[in-house]
Amino acid sequence: MSLKLTILGCHSATPRINAHPTSQHLEINNSHFIIDCGEGTQRQMRKYKVGFSKINHIFISHLHGDHFFGLIGLISTFGILGREKDLHVYGPKGIKEVTVLQLKLSKSWTSYQLIFHELTSTESELIFEDDKVSVTTIPLTHRVYTNGFLFKEKPKPRGLNIDVVKTYKEIETCDYNNIKAGRDFTLSTGEVLPNSMLTSAPEKPKSYAYCSDTMYKPDIIPIIKNVDLLYHEATFLNDREDLCEKTKHSTAKQAGIIARDAEVGKLIVGHYSSRYPNIVDFKTEAEAVFPTVENAEAGKSFTV
Amino acid sequence: MSLKLTILGCHSATPRINAHPTSQHLEINNSHFIIDCGEGTQRQMRKYKVGFSKINHIFISHLHGDHFFGLIGLISTFGILGREKDLHVYGPKGIKEVTVLQLKLSKSWTSYQLIFHELTSTESELIFEDDKVSVTTIPLTHRVYTNGFLFKEKPKPRGLNIDVVKTYKEIETCDYNNIKAGRDFTLSTGEVLPNSMLTSAPEKPKSYAYCSDTMYKPDIIPIIKNVDLLYHEATFLNDREDLCEKTKHSTAKQAGIIARDAEVGKLIVGHYSSRYPNIVDFKTEAEAVFPTVENAEAGKSFTV
Repeated sequence: MSLKLTILGCHSATPRINAHPTSQHLEINNSHFIIDCGEGTQRQMRKYKVGFSKINHIFISHLHGDHFFGLIGLISTFGILGREKDLHVYGPKGIKEVTVLQLKLSKSWTSYQLIFHELTSTESELIFEDDKVSVTTIPLTHRVYTNGFLFKEKPKPRGLNIDVVKTYKEIETCDYNNIKAGRDFTLSTGEVLPNSMLTSAPEKPKSYAYCSDTMYKPDIIPIIKNVDLLYHEATFLNDREDLCEKTKHSTAKQAGIIARDAEVGKLIVGHYSSRYPNIVDFKTEAEAVFPTVENAEAGKSFTV
Repeated sequence: MSLKLTILGCHSATPRINAHPTSQHLEINNSHFIIDCGEGTQRQMRKYKVGFSKINHIFISHLHGDHFFGLIGLISTFGILGREKDLHVYGPKGIKEVTVLQLKLSKSWTSYQLIFHELTSTESELIFEDDKVSVTTIPLTHRVYTNGFLFKEKPKPRGLNIDVVKTYKEIETCDYNNIKAGRDFTLSTGEVLPNSMLTSAPEKPKSYAYCSDTMYKPDIIPIIKNVDLLYHEATFLNDREDLCEKTKHSTAKQAGIIARDAEVGKLIVGHYSSRYPNIVDFKTEAEAVFPTVENAEAGKSFTV
């Protein structure tokens, strides 16, 4: 398993007893990320055993309360718990000002470095990269400036076919990195051993696209093409498509169309409006367009 | 019953699964108030069936997160639910700026009038009054500017001894208000009926004092003298009195001393540090000084 997504909350608008606003924990290639942070996220993290100390990067899609009001509490709690490691926060311009103002008013400066990466671009851009993962924005269309996020594992080196390699005494361990990088090996006899014989293709890098909140926006399809896992908001069912235009949200059917046209591995729908009593209706509606759909539910995990 | 206090949360510092930060609902003389508003307060209000539409006044003691981070979510939810009535928020200077900034960033202006009453005085002052209740600040000493709040029922008129009054045909219903206001009644014969014969003393007005967060501060005793119910923070037990000086909190014993010297009816202790596994120890420690002590617990109500 190199990708595990855990839903911490997936309902829209107001927190209710069993309806938590949006937040997700993503583990990808051994890195841990929090995506959005509605009120109560820190409590949900404790409930679903997300280790606070593993989180170094938090991504906020937009500054509506149901995606954001839990951030200041989480930042404060990290401080109270004695965190020392840097924390990086990515989100729309303004996120730094409002966070710093709250820390200032409470005279509760963090014990650790808090580093903001404020986003303003309306084009997709690379906002985080290390040797394991890259994170790219997915510009969305909502009532306020909003980005989704595309998380991609970095390509892994080819795997050594060790049984084959060992049959050639001339190949030394110091040659392994070159071979894993894709090079052929030339024996002293002049015989060339093709790389395809010495290595196997690595596991395909895993990818996850988070798209919330947004109206139906086919422009995002090239960015999220072929991801393994897509979370796409589905606030309404098709019966209230009229509300999508007004509120800049999507229906479950529209989420299904995006998943189908982007040829993703699996679609997760969430961000349900409270007007609908049964969340399975969202799955059913999307499945009429795209076969592999799951409901987001607090505490549910999806692995690739 | 003219006073009912419901604890929505009573733990210090960070929200945990079963440890909610501070918030209280006070019903006094048919008025409803929220006192402090830690993260998750709106969820606790739903859980303990506090009607959102009854709340017109919210009092915030200080701007530490465990007393305040739930305010913006509650304000937003009131808007989403279509509130039209004014909402009054009382709290330290800065509370307006940070709330307005969050509403501005989310482009979510409230559908109702949001009226801030920013507090700066270090003297006790009357901050709210109507024909039923008055609210006065209790200046406290904490790491940031902090007020407790004293809620007092307005004195009620004397009760008519209707059986006695009815024996006098000369007393008409239009005289009742004068009699209830304390006046004697003079018959046409010149005989004076003393008011004490025509009326009974009204029920004593109820009062509640909320004191959190604060270090031990005997200065508050004249303000809270003889209240029916006192909530006083007790973050630590006596074994860690050293921490009180540093963090500007109180021990359970100190809360007991304040209750004893102010001659209150009942003391409620809360704001427990998470270092103590058993909250009953706070009650026991305070009881060594003052006999009538209760533990605050989420969902627990106290009536006078």
